[in-house]
Amino acid sequence: MENQVLNNIRQRRSVRHFVPGKRVPREQLIELVKAGMAAPSACNRQPWAFIAIDDPEVAAELAAIHPHAAFLRDSSSAIAVCGDLDRALTEIPDYWLQDCSAATENILLAAEALGLGAVWCGVHPNSAIEPKIRAALKLPERIIPLNLIVLGYPAGQEQPKDKFDPERLHWQRW
Amino acid sequence: MENQVLNNIRQRRSVRHFVPGKRVPREQLIELVKAGMAAPSACNRQPWAFIAIDDPEVAAELAAIHPHAAFLRDSSSAIAVCGDLDRALTEIPDYWLQDCSAATENILLAAEALGLGAVWCGVHPNSAIEPKIRAALKLPERIIPLNLIVLGYPAGQEQPKDKFDPERLHWQRW
Repeated sequence: MENQVLNNIRQRRSVRHFVPGKRVPREQLIELVKAGMAAPSACNRQPWAFIAIDDPEVAAELAAIHPHAAFLRDSSSAIAVCGDLDRALTEIPDYWLQDCSAATENILLAAEALGLGAVWCGVHPNSAIEPKIRAALKLPERIIPLNLIVLGYPAGQEQPKDKFDPERLHWQRW
Repeated sequence: MENQVLNNIRQRRSVRHFVPGKRVPREQLIELVKAGMAAPSACNRQPWAFIAIDDPEVAAELAAIHPHAAFLRDSSSAIAVCGDLDRALTEIPDYWLQDCSAATENILLAAEALGLGAVWCGVHPNSAIEPKIRAALKLPERIIPLNLIVLGYPAGQEQPKDKFDPERLHWQRW
């Protein structure tokens, strides 16, 4: 068990080249959202919502808006991970960002495990992109689009990087 | 492969009861930090640093500071995930928060896969806790303590929760 989980973490890479026209099946999108909702959250508030996209028209619209997600046109499959401020912790509302980022990482790892390719395309707090994505997805005011995870079948050009840097590991104190 | 990774994501739970006096071996702490550094980051800036703690004195000091981490006294094992503002993206510095949260989730999942227990104890942006943790860990100004991940051998009281809520999944648009 431990090797497969650790290997999946190590081997996951951002995939930006997808087999054109091959969408992710709905049951897999649901599986990925389930993985996202399994993430921990501050005081278990689960301050999130997920928009799964597999409609080529909506996908093309988002691809035209987001400057780093043009390849969404190829796969027409994505999940937008959103924060729900109504569910955010009262004392420290900003914890939603950390909770939704953990949910995002779960989805990326689950995609890798399912043989899919995925890449995290940042939306919030990019003021050039966020309002446009919000409008396209018709989000209520309280829902913040954190990112678009573009998903699809990898066209096979990306390799994992070894990013371990022992200088960034300190012991006991700085 | 896919089942073990997905099962690990589903079965991971926050562990707050640890076998007293049983510390996590150093090679496992390094393995966990490696998993953290495998996370994706905006423009691959890797804006992070990790403090691994296995000294009972430092652990007791942190346990006395953090109001929700008293059990760190039992395991004396933790990793503080920190943002490094010098490595943050110039245009959108706040992306470090998302990157470091993804790294944190990798560590939590890797801990589960290694048979360890772990819990994410939030630090930043909790103004009551952050300055004290910063002082205890002797962090330079540019290093922000995002959290303390307390680690140890589970004493066996926590169960995973099924948090899937189909109402939080929308299709195509809100």
